[in-house]
Amino acid sequence: MKYNELTAQDIETLRGFIADPERFITEPTEHWDHDQFKVVRAMPKLVIQPVTNEEVQQVVKYASDHHLPLVPRGNSTGLMGANLTIKGGISLDMVKMNQVLEYDPDSLTMTVQAGIRLRDLEAYLADKPFTYMPAPAMHWATIGGNVDTNAGGLKAVKYGVTREHIRELKVVLTDGKLYKFGAKAVKSASGYSMKDLIIGSEGTLGIVTEVTVRLVPRPKNSINAIIPFPTLTQAIESVPAILASGVIPTTVEFMGRKVLDLWENYSGQEFPIKEGNGFIIVGLDAFTNEEIQAELKEILEVVKEKGAGEAIVLNADDEQAKLIWKAREELLLAIQKSTPKMDEVDVCVPINKIPNVLNRIEELEQELKMRIPNFGHAGDGNLHIYLCSDGDSDEVYEEKCHTVISELYKLTKELDGNMSGEHGIGYARKDFFDDFYGEDYTNLLRKVKGLLDPNGVINPDKIFPLEPKN
Amino acid sequence: MKYNELTAQDIETLRGFIADPERFITEPTEHWDHDQFKVVRAMPKLVIQPVTNEEVQQVVKYASDHHLPLVPRGNSTGLMGANLTIKGGISLDMVKMNQVLEYDPDSLTMTVQAGIRLRDLEAYLADKPFTYMPAPAMHWATIGGNVDTNAGGLKAVKYGVTREHIRELKVVLTDGKLYKFGAKAVKSASGYSMKDLIIGSEGTLGIVTEVTVRLVPRPKNSINAIIPFPTLTQAIESVPAILASGVIPTTVEFMGRKVLDLWENYSGQEFPIKEGNGFIIVGLDAFTNEEIQAELKEILEVVKEKGAGEAIVLNADDEQAKLIWKAREELLLAIQKSTPKMDEVDVCVPINKIPNVLNRIEELEQELKMRIPNFGHAGDGNLHIYLCSDGDSDEVYEEKCHTVISELYKLTKELDGNMSGEHGIGYARKDFFDDFYGEDYTNLLRKVKGLLDPNGVINPDKIFPLEPKN
Repeated sequence: MKYNELTAQDIETLRGFIADPERFITEPTEHWDHDQFKVVRAMPKLVIQPVTNEEVQQVVKYASDHHLPLVPRGNSTGLMGANLTIKGGISLDMVKMNQVLEYDPDSLTMTVQAGIRLRDLEAYLADKPFTYMPAPAMHWATIGGNVDTNAGGLKAVKYGVTREHIRELKVVLTDGKLYKFGAKAVKSASGYSMKDLIIGSEGTLGIVTEVTVRLVPRPKNSINAIIPFPTLTQAIESVPAILASGVIPTTVEFMGRKVLDLWENYSGQEFPIKEGNGFIIVGLDAFTNEEIQAELKEILEVVKEKGAGEAIVLNADDEQAKLIWKAREELLLAIQKSTPKMDEVDVCVPINKIPNVLNRIEELEQELKMRIPNFGHAGDGNLHIYLCSDGDSDEVYEEKCHTVISELYKLTKELDGNMSGEHGIGYARKDFFDDFYGEDYTNLLRKVKGLLDPNGVINPDKIFPLEPKN
Repeated sequence: MKYNELTAQDIETLRGFIADPERFITEPTEHWDHDQFKVVRAMPKLVIQPVTNEEVQQVVKYASDHHLPLVPRGNSTGLMGANLTIKGGISLDMVKMNQVLEYDPDSLTMTVQAGIRLRDLEAYLADKPFTYMPAPAMHWATIGGNVDTNAGGLKAVKYGVTREHIRELKVVLTDGKLYKFGAKAVKSASGYSMKDLIIGSEGTLGIVTEVTVRLVPRPKNSINAIIPFPTLTQAIESVPAILASGVIPTTVEFMGRKVLDLWENYSGQEFPIKEGNGFIIVGLDAFTNEEIQAELKEILEVVKEKGAGEAIVLNADDEQAKLIWKAREELLLAIQKSTPKMDEVDVCVPINKIPNVLNRIEELEQELKMRIPNFGHAGDGNLHIYLCSDGDSDEVYEEKCHTVISELYKLTKELDGNMSGEHGIGYARKDFFDDFYGEDYTNLLRKVKGLLDPNGVINPDKIFPLEPKN
């Protein structure tokens, strides 16, 4: 692919598409050169903040016709550099396209612009009887970003991921046209699901401008409980039995004493549970509290056979519960604080294969003398694995990272897993894609990309390299 | 697209790919010329019944290289002619590719060949603690056919449709290669979801040969209840309130006295409920019976305000319950028996818009003097609407059908619905596709088709016409 540099003429023409000069930024600051992880940086030549579909359509068509790279951007909570203008060009910053367009409880849907943050969507629904069910931990992510990475979250075990909660998308393709993919209707057997092709495509096929989500009545009752085990392995090994019990929890998370020690250092607070080295957090919701109690009883019987200690029910308004949740939500920050540099692997394996991954991590920690703390969504087989630089030089750290990432991908592939459960491939992991999924499959994705974006301008060089190795 | 006629040389070469001559049928009988509805008939020149991926790969590659139409076929329970060799060529009959390849309760998955029937899959699981949750009424359909139409069924309200229960597909594309789409792992944010592009594509993009489904623990408790209302409109209008109540039923079906009268004629039996003209069947499952009772109580309070009569709980082993289920399952056959010819519309509208469709049907019945009985999945907004020929001549009937179908699609489009909720577009409805979804969108699907099937041999002329009108 050949890209052009933005010319003064391009800038003048593009300026004409955007009504408000404050939303046309020709001298971007470092706010726009990174994502949450800051592993890669790239400064856009121009930042455009559209507020209407028409603005997006004009910019996309112009960029495609003039071979100018165009990278959509939400609120930059990504970890894999998907939002960076690696090939130069324009950053299409969607955060001002953030309106609620329709709240339609009768059809159990709500339509918003793609740049609305989850926390604003949640705030809008706070006094209403319905909720948007997926619960990604990054509440300040945009819904458009969630669609583009098919975000997971804490309730995927029972309710599925973002994909299962999207009824309809409005998407601008490189021809500058606005397409409607999906419908407000629940079901479809009416041709290829373009909606599902866009979900998870990391903004490489088109620009999502509007999202119609499914609303679900807010559960009448819900609780969480934390269950300690003597070892993390025992904790993890109890998960398939929980999922086979007949109870469908909303949430099954795991964390070990090692990451909690890091959190204690980070927060200066003590984790309130002293017993055990591995923990499972189980969430339950139901129509009646009696159902929840019966489900919890069942789960506690199941885990007791796996060596579990005394479970602690986390009530929303209890100080200890708040502290435990605070710890869970701050784990990433605590790990990040413990090391000069950090990288991440987000593999998803079949639910009974987490122990295989944890064993390999332990081996790698010893072989490489590297700290690799981890936690994650046990109920989905999705681990968040952190690679700490600690005292290593940049060169040594990068070499170790490459080994760990390669080894974990190799194992995950053998286990019939996926490279990423919810964080995406982005820029940071694209060079592993062909090897993981095979050249034939990756070439097929390249063809799909070429079909929707023939000039290759929309978020180029993400997910997989533009050209195959061979 | 230009297709070749099968030559004697083609037949000899193809014969060499299939180990067993009994699975290579050069003189097909009428078994292969129709689907469940028999509205369209087309006799294949050749029927091949593969049993391995390799056989499928060789046949597909040969057909593509030699421009021979190739139409995959399950157990022919489709209604829209999707399985017919309209352009001549080869019928790829998948029913002998029907083995269970792996039962893997630890990862909560099961892998089967695409030609296995649902009833055989259910029989395999009958003595196990897990189930394949979607419940299409056609138990003798194949899982491959279910994937190709994204089949719905009776439990979609709570558990979603086929799409939500497919972890991984093996698919042969026209290059003759076997692709793995998806993984045993639950979640993915790892590139474009080719799996979701195949699901619902009615066998027009490639041949699905293996399917890995999600297993769910069999619910501990479940019940169904039937609720009568003075009118069908009142029954339907209660549905959004049920769905907003905080209870998530597995099933919400509707049927009216008119179709039940047809069933009485058909079966020679009496429908046991004499009160009411409109009925809702609600299904519930939960961990405890107490939860179900509380949920049912809530629903009965909600519907009482909408004018409901006394509900009857359907116990699995009670004679009355069996008769009511029998009636529900035989409705299609009862309607079919009542008229010389029948056609169907399967629109899916937002859940609160079913009354709009029913009102339009009533108007059309009067305007056209035509019987248009209907029933369906109220909880999904998915209607099954039957167009009866009765005493009309073929010409008059076809004209009336065209009017009804056009009018119902027009309304469905206005309501932001889909042409088909679960039966597909197939051959019978393809000529309405461009108008319903627009030329731009349909041309996009044509491009996707061209990308995966450049010679246009895989199930040609289905879903949308090969060429746009203009």
